Amino acid sequence: MNRILIQDGLIIPMDKSLADGGELHYTGDVAVEQGKIVAAGPEGTIPADWKPDKIIDARGKAVLPGFINCHTHAAMTLFRSYADDLPLMQWLGEKIWPLEENLQSEDVYWGTQLAILEMIRSGTTTFADMYFFMDQVAQAVAETGIRACLSRGMIGVAPTRDEALKESKELVRNWHRQAEGRINVMLGPHAPYTCPPDYLDKVLEMAAELTVGIHIHLAETRDEVRDITKQYGKTPIRLMEEVGLFKFPVLAAHCVHLDEEEIEILKTHGVGVVHNPESNMKLASGIAPVSRMLEVGVKVGLGTDGPASNNNLDLIEEMRTAALLQKVSMQDPTAIPAYQALEMATRLGAAALGLSEEVGVIKPGYKADIILVDLNQPHFYPHHDPLAHLVYAARGADVDTVIIDGKVVMENREVKTIDTERVYWEVEQSARRLAGR
Amino acid sequence: MNRILIQDGLIIPMDKSLADGGELHYTGDVAVEQGKIVAAGPEGTIPADWKPDKIIDARGKAVLPGFINCHTHAAMTLFRSYADDLPLMQWLGEKIWPLEENLQSEDVYWGTQLAILEMIRSGTTTFADMYFFMDQVAQAVAETGIRACLSRGMIGVAPTRDEALKESKELVRNWHRQAEGRINVMLGPHAPYTCPPDYLDKVLEMAAELTVGIHIHLAETRDEVRDITKQYGKTPIRLMEEVGLFKFPVLAAHCVHLDEEEIEILKTHGVGVVHNPESNMKLASGIAPVSRMLEVGVKVGLGTDGPASNNNLDLIEEMRTAALLQKVSMQDPTAIPAYQALEMATRLGAAALGLSEEVGVIKPGYKADIILVDLNQPHFYPHHDPLAHLVYAARGADVDTVIIDGKVVMENREVKTIDTERVYWEVEQSARRLAGR
Repeated sequence: MNRILIQDGLIIPMDKSLADGGELHYTGDVAVEQGKIVAAGPEGTIPADWKPDKIIDARGKAVLPGFINCHTHAAMTLFRSYADDLPLMQWLGEKIWPLEENLQSEDVYWGTQLAILEMIRSGTTTFADMYFFMDQVAQAVAETGIRACLSRGMIGVAPTRDEALKESKELVRNWHRQAEGRINVMLGPHAPYTCPPDYLDKVLEMAAELTVGIHIHLAETRDEVRDITKQYGKTPIRLMEEVGLFKFPVLAAHCVHLDEEEIEILKTHGVGVVHNPESNMKLASGIAPVSRMLEVGVKVGLGTDGPASNNNLDLIEEMRTAALLQKVSMQDPTAIPAYQALEMATRLGAAALGLSEEVGVIKPGYKADIILVDLNQPHFYPHHDPLAHLVYAARGADVDTVIIDGKVVMENREVKTIDTERVYWEVEQSARRLAGR
Repeated sequence: MNRILIQDGLIIPMDKSLADGGELHYTGDVAVEQGKIVAAGPEGTIPADWKPDKIIDARGKAVLPGFINCHTHAAMTLFRSYADDLPLMQWLGEKIWPLEENLQSEDVYWGTQLAILEMIRSGTTTFADMYFFMDQVAQAVAETGIRACLSRGMIGVAPTRDEALKESKELVRNWHRQAEGRINVMLGPHAPYTCPPDYLDKVLEMAAELTVGIHIHLAETRDEVRDITKQYGKTPIRLMEEVGLFKFPVLAAHCVHLDEEEIEILKTHGVGVVHNPESNMKLASGIAPVSRMLEVGVKVGLGTDGPASNNNLDLIEEMRTAALLQKVSMQDPTAIPAYQALEMATRLGAAALGLSEEVGVIKPGYKADIILVDLNQPHFYPHHDPLAHLVYAARGADVDTVIIDGKVVMENREVKTIDTERVYWEVEQSARRLAGR
């Protein structure tokens, strides 16, 4: 099954910006061969002598690049709805951290399988993860067929600080560009308030040595900005610039509390920013200046954050919330129009991860990460504007087929690479043991 | 099929407040007879000699009162995703109103059928509607088996002002307490800025004569508050108090811009308030002080508003957004905990509609408006807290069975009272004609 023809779909290639003008979607076909898109266009584009092994009938379906979840802690599915509606430090200190201390590698394996199951079922084809027992995460990624950027979270103030560096290095050695190239490894210094400059120096040294990018939390809360400013005399973004972080490819999660000059710093250094609107709302962190970042030209992708602070991994929801939240906070109903929300979930997310030459658009030469959304649902009638439908009316459950790296991993909502019942059983066992039920 | 037994479900009766303490859910059974709940409790509650005509196996499912959508303009499904991301007055003036002028009664009938289909499929069992051609809306409600509070929208500054009063009266005469009691009629003066005091006087006179409640938009935008204050020397809420509106049972949609004294006015007069978070975000209207209203004791229900400004009719989404939006706007992650969001979607919504003796809880004597949510979904694993799951992780598509007035209107996601394909075809015809496609 090396050749797949997706036929007669409503193709939304996401390969142009709104400013380019012209048609943003068309009815047509996409040809996939050896994991890549080889042709895409209106009827007649695919050469008649190109013979597919499999034809997917895409009539009544939107065909678009798979969604990119730029920031999560996938195995935290295990803590989904374990503790909610609490102040951040009480939530972490009394609920999450005590359970995390008892996590074992199998827990992380099954928790990640569950997360991948949920992500595939809602159209996500690439995710960026920061957690621990990352070997297990990589294993789950390799087996399930999804694409991922993986980083071992490192806490520079914890007793595990040296071990974390060592494990990060091993993760790069063992998994970078592995699983048919679906895995990229990044280094994961947790945040400025958990990784002091001398620790970050070691991380940057390693990044230079191994030629990998860095995934970090930045400027998530008011407290972080206040504390870092108090301790170092400058804000987290400025401190990171001084430390030299931005000389490397950086994926910066959150970036909620920024001034105009900091936005300029992010832009100048080409930092990839991840907006996590539902997590920022749930934890009351604040509202990131997303419209402004996009206007200036910062690469802003979307993330769910961990499922303990969301509590799902549905990028469609995240698109909608991102658009609605900017409108109300900017007092401007034109802020983040539907197409821009879709860009964040696809092409811009790929750019934030440093994958803009590989995924995020439907275009010949790109990896075949493609989803089909079933438009035959009550909330998609009548068929006025499919872009607005996808952002303002859709749900994850409308995704019906998912292709990653040219392989059909879900068809008619059935995920082919995961033993769903086994996953449910295993995570339930893990959760019971961890929660002492 | 007069007797239905719902067996071995996770029952969430919603009959107590958080302050009452105790268990908020239990495993057990619910017995339905002649449209009403006759018993509910743990295994053994239902008398052994009570023989059901139908047994619904609710293992692995949450059983809760149907959701109540307290404010919508259902037939605006026809304009879903027709025009988005525009300033309010441009959206209305250039896009929506020109289409509405060409609406015919059949359009409203099919548009409402579509809305009801979508609502049932996402667990809504009662909705409060304000639109025109309300005879058609009532007909659709009667046929589909849903419960509704219907009001003919009246614009006191339009040429149709007298006709609207006349039609409202006829709607009460023809439909109030009809369709097995599933329909309640209210009067629908649109808003203070479209219904001057002398017109409202006539409406109130009619409300007194017919003994019905009133559904109105109040304090939705900054502009409304500014303009009304300029014209009358007082805010919309105070003007309505002066006019005498609050002497009647009132359902007030939006109430976004309120001061402390106005919240007190709403509380004192027992006004039912409808919070429409996604519409308020999408149109950039603002963020209603929901936590404060609930704290003071105002009855706050949830609404989607019309599907042209949302763009779906999914109350689960609205619950989640309501909770997340208050948290971020109050800078308090404990604001609107999961259970309180569920209360707004059920019991408090019923109270806002004046139906607190009829629906909104699972309790003997209440109407059998009950939904089953399938917990066997990846985003519901592991099974820590079902209340948090329903608010923070669920989607409308997880609802699998819907009972209204003791009748099974959806089972295994198949709606039994609506011809889905016909509805899709008819709304597509209407939409094409209206949009000139």
